[in-house]
Amino acid sequence: MNMTVFETEEDMIVVDAGLMFPEETMLGVDYVIPDYTYILERREKLRAIVVTHGHEDHTGALPFIMRDLGGAVPIIGTGLTIGLIKEKIREFNLKHLTYKIVKPRDIVSLGCFNVEFIHVTHSIADGVGLGISTPLGNVVHTGDFKLDFTPVDGELLDYSKFSEYGEKGTLLLLSDSTNAEKAGITPSEKEVKRAFEYNFARAKGRIIIATFASNIHRIQQAIDVAVELGKKVVLCGRSVISNARIAADLGYLRFPGNKWYKVEQINSMEPDEVVIITTGSQGEPMSVLTRISMNEHKHIKVASGDTVIISARAIPGNERAVGKIINHLFKRGANVIYDKISDVHVSGHASKDELRLMLNLIKPKYFIPVHGEYRQLVYHAKLASDQNIPNENIFVMQDGEVLEITPECALKQGTVPAGRVYIDGKGLVDRDNVILRDRKRLAQDGFVIVLISVSKDGGQLLSEPEIISKGFSFENSRRDVISEAKKIIITTFENLDRDIIKDTSAMQAKVLSTLKKYIRSTTQKSPLIMPIIVEV
Amino acid sequence: MNMTVFETEEDMIVVDAGLMFPEETMLGVDYVIPDYTYILERREKLRAIVVTHGHEDHTGALPFIMRDLGGAVPIIGTGLTIGLIKEKIREFNLKHLTYKIVKPRDIVSLGCFNVEFIHVTHSIADGVGLGISTPLGNVVHTGDFKLDFTPVDGELLDYSKFSEYGEKGTLLLLSDSTNAEKAGITPSEKEVKRAFEYNFARAKGRIIIATFASNIHRIQQAIDVAVELGKKVVLCGRSVISNARIAADLGYLRFPGNKWYKVEQINSMEPDEVVIITTGSQGEPMSVLTRISMNEHKHIKVASGDTVIISARAIPGNERAVGKIINHLFKRGANVIYDKISDVHVSGHASKDELRLMLNLIKPKYFIPVHGEYRQLVYHAKLASDQNIPNENIFVMQDGEVLEITPECALKQGTVPAGRVYIDGKGLVDRDNVILRDRKRLAQDGFVIVLISVSKDGGQLLSEPEIISKGFSFENSRRDVISEAKKIIITTFENLDRDIIKDTSAMQAKVLSTLKKYIRSTTQKSPLIMPIIVEV
Repeated sequence: MNMTVFETEEDMIVVDAGLMFPEETMLGVDYVIPDYTYILERREKLRAIVVTHGHEDHTGALPFIMRDLGGAVPIIGTGLTIGLIKEKIREFNLKHLTYKIVKPRDIVSLGCFNVEFIHVTHSIADGVGLGISTPLGNVVHTGDFKLDFTPVDGELLDYSKFSEYGEKGTLLLLSDSTNAEKAGITPSEKEVKRAFEYNFARAKGRIIIATFASNIHRIQQAIDVAVELGKKVVLCGRSVISNARIAADLGYLRFPGNKWYKVEQINSMEPDEVVIITTGSQGEPMSVLTRISMNEHKHIKVASGDTVIISARAIPGNERAVGKIINHLFKRGANVIYDKISDVHVSGHASKDELRLMLNLIKPKYFIPVHGEYRQLVYHAKLASDQNIPNENIFVMQDGEVLEITPECALKQGTVPAGRVYIDGKGLVDRDNVILRDRKRLAQDGFVIVLISVSKDGGQLLSEPEIISKGFSFENSRRDVISEAKKIIITTFENLDRDIIKDTSAMQAKVLSTLKKYIRSTTQKSPLIMPIIVEV
Repeated sequence: MNMTVFETEEDMIVVDAGLMFPEETMLGVDYVIPDYTYILERREKLRAIVVTHGHEDHTGALPFIMRDLGGAVPIIGTGLTIGLIKEKIREFNLKHLTYKIVKPRDIVSLGCFNVEFIHVTHSIADGVGLGISTPLGNVVHTGDFKLDFTPVDGELLDYSKFSEYGEKGTLLLLSDSTNAEKAGITPSEKEVKRAFEYNFARAKGRIIIATFASNIHRIQQAIDVAVELGKKVVLCGRSVISNARIAADLGYLRFPGNKWYKVEQINSMEPDEVVIITTGSQGEPMSVLTRISMNEHKHIKVASGDTVIISARAIPGNERAVGKIINHLFKRGANVIYDKISDVHVSGHASKDELRLMLNLIKPKYFIPVHGEYRQLVYHAKLASDQNIPNENIFVMQDGEVLEITPECALKQGTVPAGRVYIDGKGLVDRDNVILRDRKRLAQDGFVIVLISVSKDGGQLLSEPEIISKGFSFENSRRDVISEAKKIIITTFENLDRDIIKDTSAMQAKVLSTLKKYIRSTTQKSPLIMPIIVEV
């Protein structure tokens, strides 16, 4: 959910507008975007949204903010980045947006900001960092990066340009912190090619590779090794096909003869000539890989001797889902290769020594670690401190915090609204989280509805109360709890105060408290109880 | 949820009776135990339940199975194992159980089985493997183990006894597979002591260590290092205190002067003399560590400069919860040490080379990898195959599968009932999972109740329908969805067929289908919809 605002008195630019996939406690939420009220309120100053690369945690909020901005503000990024954004925006049916495609080393003037695009290596092609010259001095924003000394497309990180910002002096550096806990240097993407070569050569049956649809370089390497071994490449899954088409059209992905095979064709091929590239590396319930593992995919049935390569790391929270898929695939007789047992994945983010090098190149006066969890920001701050940046010049920022830089000094200056907005189907979940709290309760203990008909005049029960429950564990297994509850309600009504009888909500409250106590003590569960009193 | 049955025509013994902690999809479930119907139905043959060590995944189902068995069958284990089991059974208020405490190398006759207890090293003290002599030959069951060459209590794994079973011939080996994916040898528990020494010496403020309450050796090492540095040990949390008391009483844990401090005393101590040992290493919501990280603990407030050591690995599924706690602790100014950045944890399970050694020592005819996920069983089977055990003599078993061994051969012989039983408060969740399915739906989309009063005779609406919802995202943010839904119901009733009007359930079905369609298309959500029709 990355998003940074750079602002002066007159001008404002936004760098990235990402989404976050929901955590398991965000029940029913599809995704989470940042609260960008602050930006909307200052829209007349907003010169552009600059996007560093095409990953969803940097681009996923664009359809929402562009809808609310009405499309007047340009989105600026490199070719592949804009290609992927356009595809996403198309799904949202937004029209008349302004895009500006740039190349590395291009400089774009946005009010008082001059933004230079600096090529970086990362797990998606065409990523850039930013050199932003401002009236107060230079700012460098790395975007997401690693130092890949042997990148798949040969495009090196632009050391020279970053050095130039070091040389001419940089006021503030914002640098990727995702791997700030990891020692050393992140291995090159090329290492994965070696793992593919080894595993492809040993495979007897079909090969199925699951990876991120946006990892064009990973897909390229799978294609390259397949071609070297005379195998045929099959793409399967909507997002893989759509991303591959965009990347191929823009020249970021090369297929032999410019074509791939469709999954419908695999049954006419020999098993050992098939390499299927697909998604589902995070164990997503509806993904191709999950369906294959459950034997529910229409075309792909895993047979004994097939090889499945999960070319990704499980994002925290997904480990159990991924583990289950591996178990299921093994049960179906597949040989499953995953990051724990082979080098079929490398990270796209810089480890400690790479972060140190970036700090060495830029030598900033002020430093903000960005992109990562709080503990990773802390570790990145420690690295900067070891590089002799004074602690008072290092700012570990939380969402919404403002750093004000004047010619004299930099200081945290309070916060602006910047929370999470939950997107849930076509609606928003409310901000006070009442709905999520209710869902959590329902998920744990279910609900119990008590339907009570009383006479309009005297609060007399007209029939036995009706009890309906869902998700409450006693609804089937112990009918005695339900019938006892009914008796308790009847007794409650027999002993009701005259005052209460006149007041439906008082009756409801009485039934609720009595029943709550009984159910809690008998079952140790706290279902949501709703007494409904109908006066007849 | 480990449990193995060994059975002949006349006799049966059960090895371990564990529980499993629920996965995130098992909404509202407290824990999961194996379905032991098969054992109950053969109770007259059951000679004993033999327990290898005191971890809950080996002991947690005992209160349930003993309640159902009525307590006549003895539970056999070593001193600490039985001590921990007794404590757990006390909570369940079961009386008149029979325990038999054994020492390593003891042999117990159980019908035609002679069970010898063989000491192993593991992440809990007093663990054993089993050498079981049967009329058909010897069986070795390793329990959970690792080869710790420098165990904290000096008690080595009993290489000689395991070798003896190799020497005299073993028909079947069952061996721990948890780390069968990991190369090499698991580091000794002593490595953790070195990490404690390093981190304790550098700590300026208070030290808080979170680990598993059952890891007595880990607790011992924290105590030892604290004492070496002249610090005072505080135990905090019910399970840590209860386990420490049991272990100390039985001589498995040594405190200086046989005492520890209470958490209420910490405010009278200097920060740098305090070492607090507590639980919460898995991010459990109600644990001490979680409450400390949220600043909600009554006595312990983390201050800048305090050191928090999480001496455990996050079990798959808990990574995100643990990560959040670390972030919160950093935000409060603590220095947090965890397994990713320091050697403050080692595994209790044997890695590949240790598993190879066990296979070398025992040289079994048949082999069953046990304890671990299916993929780990597969990897362990591969190791056994590399050790020249023929593939047809290796059996990767799934829950409930039966291996029949005769003097001539071993063969899988179908399955017996052996599923999961969900324990939920004081009840069981039904086996067909309807309740869990309902809970999942409620968790995602909530519910909508429509209350409709109609006249008894003619199906006339007597008032505007009432709509009540919980957990449905449109309940607050878009009232228009609700009021439109009401209109749709009114229209539906105006156009009802004469046939339907006479039939309440047909009216319900009609309202349900109409509303479902409307809500689905407008909101992309599928709440559980319940029309309630009251005839007046």
